[in-house]
Amino acid sequence: MQKEFRITPWEVSGKIDYEKIIKEFGISKIDNKLLERIKKHTGELHLMLRRKIFFANRDLNWLLNEYEKGNKFFIYTGRGPSGPIHLGHLGTWMFTKWLQDKFNVELWFQFTDDEKFLFKNKSFDEIQRWTGENMLDVIALGFNPDKTHFLVDTKHANLIYPEAIKFAKKITLSTVKAAFGFNDSNNIGQVFYTSIQAVPAIIPSVLKRKNIPCLIPLAVDQDPHFRVARDVYPKLGFYKPSIIHGIFLPPLSGISGKMDSGGKGDERAILTTDSPEEVENKIKKYAFSGGQPSIEEHRKKGGNPDVDVSFQYLKMIFEPDDKKLKEIEEDYRSGKMLTSELKTYLIEKINVFLKEHQKRREKAKKEIKKFMFKTRDPLR
Amino acid sequence: MQKEFRITPWEVSGKIDYEKIIKEFGISKIDNKLLERIKKHTGELHLMLRRKIFFANRDLNWLLNEYEKGNKFFIYTGRGPSGPIHLGHLGTWMFTKWLQDKFNVELWFQFTDDEKFLFKNKSFDEIQRWTGENMLDVIALGFNPDKTHFLVDTKHANLIYPEAIKFAKKITLSTVKAAFGFNDSNNIGQVFYTSIQAVPAIIPSVLKRKNIPCLIPLAVDQDPHFRVARDVYPKLGFYKPSIIHGIFLPPLSGISGKMDSGGKGDERAILTTDSPEEVENKIKKYAFSGGQPSIEEHRKKGGNPDVDVSFQYLKMIFEPDDKKLKEIEEDYRSGKMLTSELKTYLIEKINVFLKEHQKRREKAKKEIKKFMFKTRDPLR
Repeated sequence: MQKEFRITPWEVSGKIDYEKIIKEFGISKIDNKLLERIKKHTGELHLMLRRKIFFANRDLNWLLNEYEKGNKFFIYTGRGPSGPIHLGHLGTWMFTKWLQDKFNVELWFQFTDDEKFLFKNKSFDEIQRWTGENMLDVIALGFNPDKTHFLVDTKHANLIYPEAIKFAKKITLSTVKAAFGFNDSNNIGQVFYTSIQAVPAIIPSVLKRKNIPCLIPLAVDQDPHFRVARDVYPKLGFYKPSIIHGIFLPPLSGISGKMDSGGKGDERAILTTDSPEEVENKIKKYAFSGGQPSIEEHRKKGGNPDVDVSFQYLKMIFEPDDKKLKEIEEDYRSGKMLTSELKTYLIEKINVFLKEHQKRREKAKKEIKKFMFKTRDPLR
Repeated sequence: MQKEFRITPWEVSGKIDYEKIIKEFGISKIDNKLLERIKKHTGELHLMLRRKIFFANRDLNWLLNEYEKGNKFFIYTGRGPSGPIHLGHLGTWMFTKWLQDKFNVELWFQFTDDEKFLFKNKSFDEIQRWTGENMLDVIALGFNPDKTHFLVDTKHANLIYPEAIKFAKKITLSTVKAAFGFNDSNNIGQVFYTSIQAVPAIIPSVLKRKNIPCLIPLAVDQDPHFRVARDVYPKLGFYKPSIIHGIFLPPLSGISGKMDSGGKGDERAILTTDSPEEVENKIKKYAFSGGQPSIEEHRKKGGNPDVDVSFQYLKMIFEPDDKKLKEIEEDYRSGKMLTSELKTYLIEKINVFLKEHQKRREKAKKEIKKFMFKTRDPLR
């Protein structure tokens, strides 16, 4: 059987079939019962939960059991810093911040600079530069610095590497070849890397010498890392982390694949540093439209919001008001709302957001140190 | 063609054919011309050079060219801390100390605790304990603490790991499979490890931001690591390290394989912590003899010092006096000297040495901190 899509942490292509992913990855759908259970603690549901942008999970019920017993979890998420931040990244992190605020828990945020160096044709220095740049965007989202700890794989290697080899010892080459599609022409750093990504899920437990549950919000392409490491956690005496899986924000060009800010030209994504004019130009020029070729035809047949990238951006990030979103959806589908009107609405939303974000991003330059986790030097 | 011996960093078995190794590894014999050249700088030749215990090299002439131009080198050697130290280890390190003293150069001494954890069926804590124990033996040999820097792979990961991934990016799985005989059932840490061992050869260059030549004295089984990394050094802007290769001190049981203190019972090796009685007992009971079954036969036919382990220990480490060694060799070969006399002579030599070594080893417990390289915390 031909696969219509391909999904690994380093490649997402084709039209993603999320139902198929759930089956193939062996993960569970987030159903309404689980949503209700979350709501019991959070009071409300984030739009990404209401709209099933975060659609699947591993062991989330177990995590809530522990939470209800008073066994608080921490959140672990991260960023591979190989290029500028685009709106797709921000979505996941906004949701992460919501989780942090609602459950009042610690967040460990990993910057996988080693990964990006090993997998991309970019220099170590360039990756370091992006690491610093990307931190600004994370900070700008307003994470609580007292409860948020940045880990940079190469800068926190004293903390991470000694734990990573404990995972590595229990993962064979066969396993990573099967999970990630590696072959013998892969470099030996790529092959080892997954054991580094496994580590932040146990760092708080290691530091506090007790077993603390971990929740990982991630885009579903990252799941294979934890599928591989999953069986290892209990062998090392730790809980398996719980995972909550998000779909991808589509690239401007359409709903196949994930938004990618790296390499292929900036026209594929809206960057957090884009000016209002750039945003306007990109949305108008590149955002794939579900509308009809002519106004007359659009009025008659209506547009298709399901494939319309502008509508999807509103749904995934920029229109928190469910009533308003439904109105837009219906108006667009009926032909009452034109593509140009939809795009204008989105452009305004994005630009209001980015104006504030860019201000905070500038201020964040002085705050990086506060977020960097301070390790104890094992040699002093 | 059947191989009669097998040699990788993790397995040495069979009767080693050093001529064959030179050919297979593509290394060069140390000839008399090269010895004379070394002597020009050192004034004398260490017994391990005079007696061809260090028998081969890579780029040693180049290293001396640089040295003569005023471009001083540093020495890098190391220890895989998986068990107690035996006399075979000390031999190489005594020679290393001689090199340090004669050329007045820095020594970087790596403890590959990650390697031993990844390759041995031992816990992380046990490996850490051996790391501390093994350091005592290195210090006891009298290395200059102002010029000697200990690196522990897991404790200096902040320094080593960011450089290791630069090597790893340029080494494929195919390459390490061929060099080390790995297959898909190896764990992913084992596969990555060689890139960690490559790093200390560039650490001083990285820290001082200039290219400094490196000399690596090692037992020849470690050569594959540098064979793999060798082509990578220039790609990263560094000199290829020069290497000087030693043969193995044979185990007590005979001149096949290398002395191994790990796993197979202590009767195979003399440990630095052995009491005089233990030394006497081990040599008398286990040291393979080149003598004849009866005194009468020995007097008539004579013994064979080439396979006699006691004689080999004198030759490799404990009898620096060439004249005396020759006398012993001749007397043993002629039958004038009995195996029991040879063993008594060796036991006395070892015990005189160990008495002093054990005293210094005790004192060394307070000196570890002085030898540990202090890294700058990249986060402060």
